[in-house]
Amino acid sequence: MATFRLAVEYDGTAFHGWQRQSRARSVQGELEAALSRLTGAPARVTGAGRTDAGCHAAGQVASATVETRLEAERLRAALNAHLPRDVRIVEAVETPASFHARFDAMRRSYRYLVVGAPSALHRERAWVRTLRCVAADLQRASHPLHGEHDFVSFSKASPDTESTRCRVTRARWSGRGGRLRFDIEADRFLYTMVRRIVATVIREAEAGRGGAAVHAVLDARDRRAAAPPAPAHGLYLMRVRYPRVGWIPRGRMNVVG
Amino acid sequence: MATFRLAVEYDGTAFHGWQRQSRARSVQGELEAALSRLTGAPARVTGAGRTDAGCHAAGQVASATVETRLEAERLRAALNAHLPRDVRIVEAVETPASFHARFDAMRRSYRYLVVGAPSALHRERAWVRTLRCVAADLQRASHPLHGEHDFVSFSKASPDTESTRCRVTRARWSGRGGRLRFDIEADRFLYTMVRRIVATVIREAEAGRGGAAVHAVLDARDRRAAAPPAPAHGLYLMRVRYPRVGWIPRGRMNVVG
Repeated sequence: MATFRLAVEYDGTAFHGWQRQSRARSVQGELEAALSRLTGAPARVTGAGRTDAGCHAAGQVASATVETRLEAERLRAALNAHLPRDVRIVEAVETPASFHARFDAMRRSYRYLVVGAPSALHRERAWVRTLRCVAADLQRASHPLHGEHDFVSFSKASPDTESTRCRVTRARWSGRGGRLRFDIEADRFLYTMVRRIVATVIREAEAGRGGAAVHAVLDARDRRAAAPPAPAHGLYLMRVRYPRVGWIPRGRMNVVG
Repeated sequence: MATFRLAVEYDGTAFHGWQRQSRARSVQGELEAALSRLTGAPARVTGAGRTDAGCHAAGQVASATVETRLEAERLRAALNAHLPRDVRIVEAVETPASFHARFDAMRRSYRYLVVGAPSALHRERAWVRTLRCVAADLQRASHPLHGEHDFVSFSKASPDTESTRCRVTRARWSGRGGRLRFDIEADRFLYTMVRRIVATVIREAEAGRGGAAVHAVLDARDRRAAAPPAPAHGLYLMRVRYPRVGWIPRGRMNVVG
């Protein structure tokens, strides 16, 4: 048995999200099926973060324990030969058996793309929407997100009582001319959090309100204070940070946006 | 009757090219069908340039003579409501009846995208291929393309005896980190010319040969001297230049790449 750290790029359009489901196509399910075909043994893959139906990844990170003698680069090539074209392994590294893609992750980085309407080419790759504000307005409105806060206002009602505190280390808007991106990094993210932040920041910036309004949404600790989530197909899991090795995958930040 | 200049964006993936065909889905066919549904009368649309199956457009320009009293912006909205999501009208302007999208065009601008392998997200939007050279090498190799030449070496064998001379006014590589683009402008383009130029320039730059090799391909006036065409799905018709009005559509150069 050998354990691998896989960096995975996928086009989320035809998936019902990352997580394995019995009756729907998932990225995790496709990876496990490809590993099983390759090795002839059942396989289990764990992702650093779940992504919803329609969300993409330029750099999801997964751990996989596999019955194989292949070295990492050959495993990567063999896996890509067995995978459908909307999932690609972009990096594979053998790790100690203790490596766990989710528990070991220190930080995640997501990108959200907004492209001015109308657009045929970006319809499943960005939120196609004309903005009535510029990146600087969005940046001002995003200022209160930095640091550690209770992000419950930006979460989906959920039965679990897990903590809703997250520490945001980056929240940056860039681009112009009807093609903007929002990069956000944190130690952890709540379900639909990035999409709710994007929709709320845009709502407040377009209304000419700055950081104070977004600060008030955070402070409210009430989901009804935030805007409904922006569409899933604008969201990309870009990379994941681990102790010692740093951001994985390496050098993929210009792959989208 | 009123004549309109339409700027059209499309995702070429599910089309057998621009040109109307009796048994295959085409962009021209979809536009004519949407106009007919809208007006109740047959419609004819002429494009500035044909694009092959799989090629995209951020700014194809078309002329359409339509039985309608709608003003241009309302026609644009109504057309988008009748069109499939992989075609969008991004600009519509009423013109004199004499306007002809193809005959009046002075210059066309195409962009070709190359993204490093592997990639799931770009598989139908770029040539996914690892390059063994950088933008500066490609730029050097592209130098001889500038100016007026016989581009027959970069054309497909064809029964017609049309002129193969074109005047290239721009041929520029940009980008880095496994995401490059090539912008080329000329008064006219031969069938598959951009894709043959891209493949040939990459072949020569990767072999460490510069402009002299590409110059020799041009000089050979022989299709066998050039490389086979790069894939259609990396190519975008970006915009078209007309007398007085300039480049159409306006301000769309950052929509892809």
